[in-house]
Amino acid sequence: MTRPTGADVRASCRSGKLTGPTPGLAPGFVQANLVLLPKDWAFDFLLFCQRNPKPCPLLDVTEPGDPEPKTVAPGSDLRTDLPAYRIWENGELTAEPTDIRDHWRDDLVGFVIGCSFTFENALLEARIPVRHIEQGVNVPMYRTNIACRSAGRFHGPMVVSMRPLRPEQAIRATTICAKLPLAHGAPIHFGDAAAIGITDIAKPDFGDAVEIRTDEVPVFWACGVTPQAALMKARPPFAITHKPGHMFLTDLRDHELEQV
Amino acid sequence: MTRPTGADVRASCRSGKLTGPTPGLAPGFVQANLVLLPKDWAFDFLLFCQRNPKPCPLLDVTEPGDPEPKTVAPGSDLRTDLPAYRIWENGELTAEPTDIRDHWRDDLVGFVIGCSFTFENALLEARIPVRHIEQGVNVPMYRTNIACRSAGRFHGPMVVSMRPLRPEQAIRATTICAKLPLAHGAPIHFGDAAAIGITDIAKPDFGDAVEIRTDEVPVFWACGVTPQAALMKARPPFAITHKPGHMFLTDLRDHELEQV
Repeated sequence: MTRPTGADVRASCRSGKLTGPTPGLAPGFVQANLVLLPKDWAFDFLLFCQRNPKPCPLLDVTEPGDPEPKTVAPGSDLRTDLPAYRIWENGELTAEPTDIRDHWRDDLVGFVIGCSFTFENALLEARIPVRHIEQGVNVPMYRTNIACRSAGRFHGPMVVSMRPLRPEQAIRATTICAKLPLAHGAPIHFGDAAAIGITDIAKPDFGDAVEIRTDEVPVFWACGVTPQAALMKARPPFAITHKPGHMFLTDLRDHELEQV
Repeated sequence: MTRPTGADVRASCRSGKLTGPTPGLAPGFVQANLVLLPKDWAFDFLLFCQRNPKPCPLLDVTEPGDPEPKTVAPGSDLRTDLPAYRIWENGELTAEPTDIRDHWRDDLVGFVIGCSFTFENALLEARIPVRHIEQGVNVPMYRTNIACRSAGRFHGPMVVSMRPLRPEQAIRATTICAKLPLAHGAPIHFGDAAAIGITDIAKPDFGDAVEIRTDEVPVFWACGVTPQAALMKARPPFAITHKPGHMFLTDLRDHELEQV
């Protein structure tokens, strides 16, 4: 049996066979967040991503009405190739379909945004442990008091994910992740959670709490939930995102995101 | 006498004292290309830059109608702070004013784009010679047969600049420039000019020819003239750019563009 590729996972989604979460599928292939917005909201959102590249690293942006992200996955179709989606109307979640052909509009622009799985794979390959994977739970995520740079109608706090590491692991993780700017890049903070406005590290705003051992410090990375939070705040009349954990598989290999 | 800063050069432009070219002014401060476009053309252009980051590295993008690029030069004013501008109507050059207060519109979006001066300074500091500076002429630039990724109404060939180097200099130049993705990054080609569609290296499409010695190869970098060429092809009803060589001085230091 050959190892499944990003295209294999997309085909499973397209045929309706795969409707569950994607972590661990097609190892080595870049997984991505998806945001779809009407053209008249797309400039503001593109600008928001351009101004906040750590939480919103853009891998690809489609032409209005074109469901194919030609750079990262030629031949793919954003309407069918993810396992599950979320439909948003005026900032409210209204549906969680497994394909969006019935929701498609000719003015939709697709934003394919880098994801933490890429750098987590790089950490694991460097034998740096990732606690929430060890514990089999979702990564803990927190709203911070760090404001994103606003862009038109989009604004809001940076959301961060947290992984506990020993100092020497944190240092190696920093050098590894700094080479992956399209997967959130180097951490944005470590240590004192209150310094970035997190009041209780045991109570994440999204995801699950994880154990922090006495020789470890919490290390914080900019998180892909940031643009989704800005989106919910801005309340565009219509938007579609992936369902959390149900990502878009690209043809990119993890190592292709590495920069010198 | 203290060394002039980016802000000093901008103040000289604003007062009308400086209307000439900027190379060599405020050494150490990042100089930038400027493109101003109406909002209804800005999404396509932002997408063009996002898709072609080597020729079009974005340093800052302003909100529609706001003349202040807040990230790279807080307090500055794009209407007055460049020595000279070009006004374009339907792709035709119609004026070359020294300020654009009379041409300003409330729907203009400013694109501040990285420039080769930054990496040329880095090369000179590494004792790598830059021939056109030695010869006191403009850098030679060529249209290639490498197509940019199109975005809406913007498309066209990549324009490159060329500097002749010995192989070991070319290798060091590559590692130095790779760390400066916001100043066009690593070269895109070296050696055989015909391979990228350049028919006569002695006849650049823009700028001046320079000497290539027998132990040297031509080394080609993505060039900031690329977005201007795409702009002229797309013929938007209205656009403003800097006059070539008359750049926008930012508050960024050259070394701040360095990435790990």
